[in-house]
Amino acid sequence: MQKKVLQVQIHNGGTSGLEKLIDMTTTSSWVKLKALAEVPYDLTAEGALGAGSRMERYVSRSHLMKLFFATQRIDDEVLTCLQELADELVLVEQFKQMRRGKIINRIEGYESENRQVLHTACRDLFSSAPVEPVATGQAKVELEKLRVFLGELESGALLNHRGKTFDTMIQIGIGGSDLVPRSIYEALKPYGITGRKVFFISNVDPDDAARVLAEVNLETCLVNIVSKSGTTLETLTNERLIRSMMEERGLNPDHQCITVTGEGSPMDNPDEYLRSFYMFDNIGGRYSSTSMVGAVMLGFYIGFDRVMEFLKGAAIVDYEAEQTDIYENIPLMLALLGIWNHNLLGSSSLAILPYSQALHRFTAHLQQCDMESNGKSINRRGERVEYKTGPVIWGEPGTNGQHAFYQLLHQGTEVIPAEFIGFSRSQTEVDKNVQGSTSQEKLLSNLFAQVVALATGQVSANPNRKFEGNRPSSLLFAEQLTPEVMGAILAAYEAKIVFQGFLWNINSFDQEGVQLGKVLAARFLKAITGHSDDVNSVENKFLQQLSDRQQ
Amino acid sequence: MQKKVLQVQIHNGGTSGLEKLIDMTTTSSWVKLKALAEVPYDLTAEGALGAGSRMERYVSRSHLMKLFFATQRIDDEVLTCLQELADELVLVEQFKQMRRGKIINRIEGYESENRQVLHTACRDLFSSAPVEPVATGQAKVELEKLRVFLGELESGALLNHRGKTFDTMIQIGIGGSDLVPRSIYEALKPYGITGRKVFFISNVDPDDAARVLAEVNLETCLVNIVSKSGTTLETLTNERLIRSMMEERGLNPDHQCITVTGEGSPMDNPDEYLRSFYMFDNIGGRYSSTSMVGAVMLGFYIGFDRVMEFLKGAAIVDYEAEQTDIYENIPLMLALLGIWNHNLLGSSSLAILPYSQALHRFTAHLQQCDMESNGKSINRRGERVEYKTGPVIWGEPGTNGQHAFYQLLHQGTEVIPAEFIGFSRSQTEVDKNVQGSTSQEKLLSNLFAQVVALATGQVSANPNRKFEGNRPSSLLFAEQLTPEVMGAILAAYEAKIVFQGFLWNINSFDQEGVQLGKVLAARFLKAITGHSDDVNSVENKFLQQLSDRQQ
Repeated sequence: MQKKVLQVQIHNGGTSGLEKLIDMTTTSSWVKLKALAEVPYDLTAEGALGAGSRMERYVSRSHLMKLFFATQRIDDEVLTCLQELADELVLVEQFKQMRRGKIINRIEGYESENRQVLHTACRDLFSSAPVEPVATGQAKVELEKLRVFLGELESGALLNHRGKTFDTMIQIGIGGSDLVPRSIYEALKPYGITGRKVFFISNVDPDDAARVLAEVNLETCLVNIVSKSGTTLETLTNERLIRSMMEERGLNPDHQCITVTGEGSPMDNPDEYLRSFYMFDNIGGRYSSTSMVGAVMLGFYIGFDRVMEFLKGAAIVDYEAEQTDIYENIPLMLALLGIWNHNLLGSSSLAILPYSQALHRFTAHLQQCDMESNGKSINRRGERVEYKTGPVIWGEPGTNGQHAFYQLLHQGTEVIPAEFIGFSRSQTEVDKNVQGSTSQEKLLSNLFAQVVALATGQVSANPNRKFEGNRPSSLLFAEQLTPEVMGAILAAYEAKIVFQGFLWNINSFDQEGVQLGKVLAARFLKAITGHSDDVNSVENKFLQQLSDRQQ
Repeated sequence: MQKKVLQVQIHNGGTSGLEKLIDMTTTSSWVKLKALAEVPYDLTAEGALGAGSRMERYVSRSHLMKLFFATQRIDDEVLTCLQELADELVLVEQFKQMRRGKIINRIEGYESENRQVLHTACRDLFSSAPVEPVATGQAKVELEKLRVFLGELESGALLNHRGKTFDTMIQIGIGGSDLVPRSIYEALKPYGITGRKVFFISNVDPDDAARVLAEVNLETCLVNIVSKSGTTLETLTNERLIRSMMEERGLNPDHQCITVTGEGSPMDNPDEYLRSFYMFDNIGGRYSSTSMVGAVMLGFYIGFDRVMEFLKGAAIVDYEAEQTDIYENIPLMLALLGIWNHNLLGSSSLAILPYSQALHRFTAHLQQCDMESNGKSINRRGERVEYKTGPVIWGEPGTNGQHAFYQLLHQGTEVIPAEFIGFSRSQTEVDKNVQGSTSQEKLLSNLFAQVVALATGQVSANPNRKFEGNRPSSLLFAEQLTPEVMGAILAAYEAKIVFQGFLWNINSFDQEGVQLGKVLAARFLKAITGHSDDVNSVENKFLQQLSDRQQ
């Protein structure tokens, strides 16, 4: 490992500050940015959007997409300083070290997970020399297992014990094992193999499983149980529920269940599962879409070749994220613009607004990936940070959102920056010319209109029809939402989140904040099921109050 | 109208300030609250949750649910001042006037919609003397039309022109005509009539319609097109798309389409629609679930009697919302606690977290209802407000969210207040005992644990395992998510939003903020379809940049 890091250092000529993990507020570029933020670019001024060829120049480019940011409250000077900030904090160098296996999931001086962060290795499959060959080697083994498995399903070599073909997959998992694959499944629906369907059960709420069970024929279901530890409470509970339903119907669950789990976990058991695919400690749940967590389900649904296209899109962006030039590195530009809005201009949340119904759950995935990664209060040295870290991430697809919450984006008292996502062409291209234009043309017109309207605003003698403008946004734009482009967008956001973690000097890869709830839930469960003697505990008081209502 | 308002004034003995529409910051209770907010109640202190019987006393009660708020940063003094604030601003009196038909959708001195706000009248069906008999009379006429229509579907008197039974409804609408019914449909799925299904098409993105078309048999579909004006771009476009698909398959859309629209709108045409149900100008889209916008779809899906239960739940809460005592008025308490957190303690968004998978789209509805209503910057006299109005509303169901964004709720740098929603029993009560407890018990344990964990936090020598606590939340709790309880929760949130609008002294019932985007979209559409000559316009520059990427 040491050797690899060294190579990178030589290649990049100097990594001063790299080991110190400094706070962004101590850099010289930060001082300049703070001054510039006092008078940010005024997008509402006459001709402001067109000035100095902003529209042409304020674009970051990738092989598969572009990021337009002329509608941010920035100018050339700000962009220069943002580039300097990226350089001072050696952000790209840190990203390279992550990809090459440095242990960055840690807090200096305190007990922590102490792990590598190698989700990028699962897709580093298209270069003759992957940057971290060990993890990529593991990923290749799993992919080969998947290829064989899918082939057996395809050929009919693998059937249930009654000789029936599996046409449905139920994925049981929660958190990353749910949101990540579900959002990609929804996004790539038009690419599904005819006749195949996928359902997801995540919530411990028994109504969640009941809903899915009402829609499937269990006889032809593969059930894919996803849990790295093999001990996730919700997932185990739902697995038991489905298994007993199968048994009640005379099915043998051991012949219909597969698992994605850690090697050697309680679930890694060939007696109970048709197949085990492995996930590794160096990939967190929220970064696991390109690991087996996403790939098994996706392979079943869209086939192996298209999974490879999806991985390729992600791999392309991972390499692009190693460009130091912010105009050539979309994730880095997204990260820096986010810091500008959040830490320097004072916004508190970020709306992500895809103009594509296919991405209707993608924002929920990003909400997890971003907020679980960067909703932290201490830096990588264990000190409390003195600036804001991750914002609330939220959003719904346009044009639907326009008829919902855009009122607040345009005329609310707080400025909410937005990241729009759009595509030249629809996925299915089933379209109709109504009143002189297609639906896709209408969709894009609305998208562009929102970007401009938020920026420029509008004056009016009627105060209720006044739009203050100066509400910043960016637009991530690609040709069409194919598997490859989906992979690219996913990887771009993952890398953005990682870069922002570096900027805030936090560990984006643990989630200690979910532990306390788990501990208290176990206590409440004891109280609810009557195994607790302490009638005066807070939880029993809570329960008393709640049961009181039924009287 | 004048007479009715007068009656109310006499009944309530004085309405000073009512016509002045004063800002909350000018009240004497506000001054006291500001001082109290300097040192808010510390939930992390030893025994803080149990002190002074908080758990027992800090509860607002309704016929169908309770609101627990001991985990807010408040004490008796704050509650007294919040009650005073409600009284000083005559909030309940304003609510009564709304229900009785006062024209409150207006901005004093400026051109505005100048309308009544009477969504409550659609469900004021269970009292011998509805408070606004004209609007309730109209609602009754529509409900009777619906009852007859559903009876004809049931009896087989109404079939398609090929003699087939309608087993599927496609609802085409956007904004309120989509989110509102969709969220209720999802919530009440277990109550659906066997064999019936409902799909929704909203987005102008052609992929949205394509997804639905891939799943339905058009021959047995009733298509319900919902647009008050009969001119909504997205809705018309999707209607044309579906109609032409039907024609391609030899079906006659005029015999399969129904509409919910304004009387006399272009859609109110018996030649093209089997039936027209009416919606009225005094009900905004986001408040329309209990009007025909929700009721037609819901009646098809769960039957007329259950629609009436749903309406009854809403009606019960509407009457409860006229209680001046904040302990007897859940919506009012929710509104005031929101103001305390948002305007006095400085939070900027609100997480709504239902522990019920059935409510998985309910937060999206509330996001619309709240943000479109209260994302405003001018008060009812047309002056810019000098305080924050509506927060960003977001959330996903628990326990899913725990594995997603709760990290930030617990350990992020900003405090995000939360409103939890829970139920004693699951909807289906299909459950299993796994490891000594049922899924429902696990679900509730997690819910209670989160409420407590956010409040109390945890000390730790490891800074990464420290939880600062003092993150406030409330818990809305009911027995079971039945149609009646769904109506009650819906009405409680509608009334909360209305009360907050009164508190902020804004008009919660218009949406001028969506207009600019519409105007600009029309311009972009002209440019995209080649009818614009101005190659140097911002939109053409945008388009040039976007088309450039394909080279």
